[in-house]
Amino acid sequence: MLNAHQQQILRLLIASHGMSRTVLAEKMKLSKAAISTLVKEMLQAGLLEESIPESSGQGRPSVLLKMRADSAYFLGASLLGERVILVLIDMHGRTLAATQMPLNLDPPQLAKTIAAAIPDLIAQKSITQDQLIGLGVTLSGFVDENQAICVQSALLGWKNVPLAELLKQQTGLEVSLENDAKALAVSEKIFGVAKKARNFTLISHGDGIGSAHFFQGQLHRGAHGAAGEIAHCTIEPGGRPCRCGKRGCLDTLASLTAIRESVRDKALESESIAELEALAVKGNSAAIAILHQAGHALGLSIANIIQMNDPELIVIAHQPDAFDGLLKTVVMQAIDSHVLPSIIGKTPIASMVINEESWARAAASVAAYRFIIHLPD
Amino acid sequence: MLNAHQQQILRLLIASHGMSRTVLAEKMKLSKAAISTLVKEMLQAGLLEESIPESSGQGRPSVLLKMRADSAYFLGASLLGERVILVLIDMHGRTLAATQMPLNLDPPQLAKTIAAAIPDLIAQKSITQDQLIGLGVTLSGFVDENQAICVQSALLGWKNVPLAELLKQQTGLEVSLENDAKALAVSEKIFGVAKKARNFTLISHGDGIGSAHFFQGQLHRGAHGAAGEIAHCTIEPGGRPCRCGKRGCLDTLASLTAIRESVRDKALESESIAELEALAVKGNSAAIAILHQAGHALGLSIANIIQMNDPELIVIAHQPDAFDGLLKTVVMQAIDSHVLPSIIGKTPIASMVINEESWARAAASVAAYRFIIHLPD
Repeated sequence: MLNAHQQQILRLLIASHGMSRTVLAEKMKLSKAAISTLVKEMLQAGLLEESIPESSGQGRPSVLLKMRADSAYFLGASLLGERVILVLIDMHGRTLAATQMPLNLDPPQLAKTIAAAIPDLIAQKSITQDQLIGLGVTLSGFVDENQAICVQSALLGWKNVPLAELLKQQTGLEVSLENDAKALAVSEKIFGVAKKARNFTLISHGDGIGSAHFFQGQLHRGAHGAAGEIAHCTIEPGGRPCRCGKRGCLDTLASLTAIRESVRDKALESESIAELEALAVKGNSAAIAILHQAGHALGLSIANIIQMNDPELIVIAHQPDAFDGLLKTVVMQAIDSHVLPSIIGKTPIASMVINEESWARAAASVAAYRFIIHLPD
Repeated sequence: MLNAHQQQILRLLIASHGMSRTVLAEKMKLSKAAISTLVKEMLQAGLLEESIPESSGQGRPSVLLKMRADSAYFLGASLLGERVILVLIDMHGRTLAATQMPLNLDPPQLAKTIAAAIPDLIAQKSITQDQLIGLGVTLSGFVDENQAICVQSALLGWKNVPLAELLKQQTGLEVSLENDAKALAVSEKIFGVAKKARNFTLISHGDGIGSAHFFQGQLHRGAHGAAGEIAHCTIEPGGRPCRCGKRGCLDTLASLTAIRESVRDKALESESIAELEALAVKGNSAAIAILHQAGHALGLSIANIIQMNDPELIVIAHQPDAFDGLLKTVVMQAIDSHVLPSIIGKTPIASMVINEESWARAAASVAAYRFIIHLPD
């Protein structure tokens, strides 16, 4: 098992594009000899590899250490769609194989179905059970602090379901549950655009709206697992009723569901956001109004996050072809017009497309995060 | 100088009401012998003291270790009022002596004035210059990440003022600057109601509204020092113009300044919030409406913080006699009616009275925090 220093080496390497022994020694305030000994064990264990960057022409280039892609494998299951999507990823976050199966809402049955799909999935890449480190599961709802129990999920109709234990019994793997937006934030932190950010917020924009924060380099789950519940911030007091029981929540104004409802209310002929954007380009005032309302609400909420938490980075994760054109323009304008003038334009806003498989990969990254950040003693 | 383990001992003791060697050994995963050696040095250095709790009747009570009140002294200066307030505190956060002086807005002159007041202040308690560890300064505005430069302060009319260096030259002390709400949060974290909270938010309600967060046990300053700028979250789009250049900010609805403006607009005879509350009790509808508007806006903002960050604790710091009666009732109701039904009532809300001296003590606590949490190598 790795010691605390070796865990720190993994954390430093995952946040970089490779690091020399000299830089590791500086960052960890250890001697280069001590680092060499620690690294040697990790090379022998197959966790790390060395790479020699092209010479910059100034003396001998130093050897960079990187995590080996094949040093560990993780599984991820998404319970967000109509079918379960199960993927296999490597230590670099690449999806190696994927499969689908029916979403059985009975937890023991679901655990059996997922477990039964694993041998074929990993065999596709000639990976054996003992090379698997863990399984992550992502769902819509609250998860307990040990990431073992789904405390509540309206989408799945679950309350206090000990899914991690059921899956562990069936698969023999360590299992971690995570809320969808939090899983996606973890994925971007360890494999994506937020690698180097210690404090950032990810917003997921889809049928519902979610968000998740990293603070001080750690996922912030909140005192009741509810951190990031941006969807239910009141934007329009007394507005449309929300499924949460309140009115005028961000979700009722800016989610894809809300936009589709507005399209129906206005009897517009538009089957998708892309079509709605096309109508807006043609000057259709109803389409423009709908996109304005949604964009303004979402931008205002993001501005609130910026003012409250002043993150290094905001990542907006959105559906394919559903965050371009007017919607995106209005969101960006609303952010700028609602943050303090002295910090306008200082917070980078990144956007990324997500699809069904993204959630399963995010789930797998939760297992990877647990391995890297919270390696067991 | 203390080593890393001894720093950790200080951090554990400051968050407790005393701890035995056995408990320290458990928490730090060190042997009891190792802890005893570390503690022995700290006892000899006068940092710690032992106390014997009254026997609970079950065997020999273990000796508790505590930080000695006289192990270190700190100074704090508040630049928030019309005069500078300078205080001396001990390691338990008690204010031992205080003095006042004119607030000279010329930074070099200000540094000289503050430095000149120190000898008399500490002599009152027979404390010598070499027993002083540091000086904290609190101000309204942004401070750079090294807590050395006041980047911007509208109240002081400053931009990029290197006050820490000026004060260091004049006093010979380590100097840390901090924004007012952040300083108060630090004070509550190390000496007050938030001792045991790793994630909490403090709201300061006065002429302006401020807030500050602790995440993962650390003060969260934000990527641009702007974290906590709750005052400029838009609550009423298109509402009253705010001094920040936007409209409808929380400050324009709920600050004491905003309440006083509303009182003038309605030509009410009320010189203070206490008098306004008294009018409301008598059924004056204008007074009731003003308190409702302010309380609703503040409660909505706090609800947004709860939903976005899900802190363990919210602390509302307010002026004497300015957060009771209807205002407080409406704030509490607005919090409950705007957070997700599943987490209603789960976030403890503490309130505390602040006066002019509180800010100077908070400034001193910033110096103490730096000593305890970020002890120099």
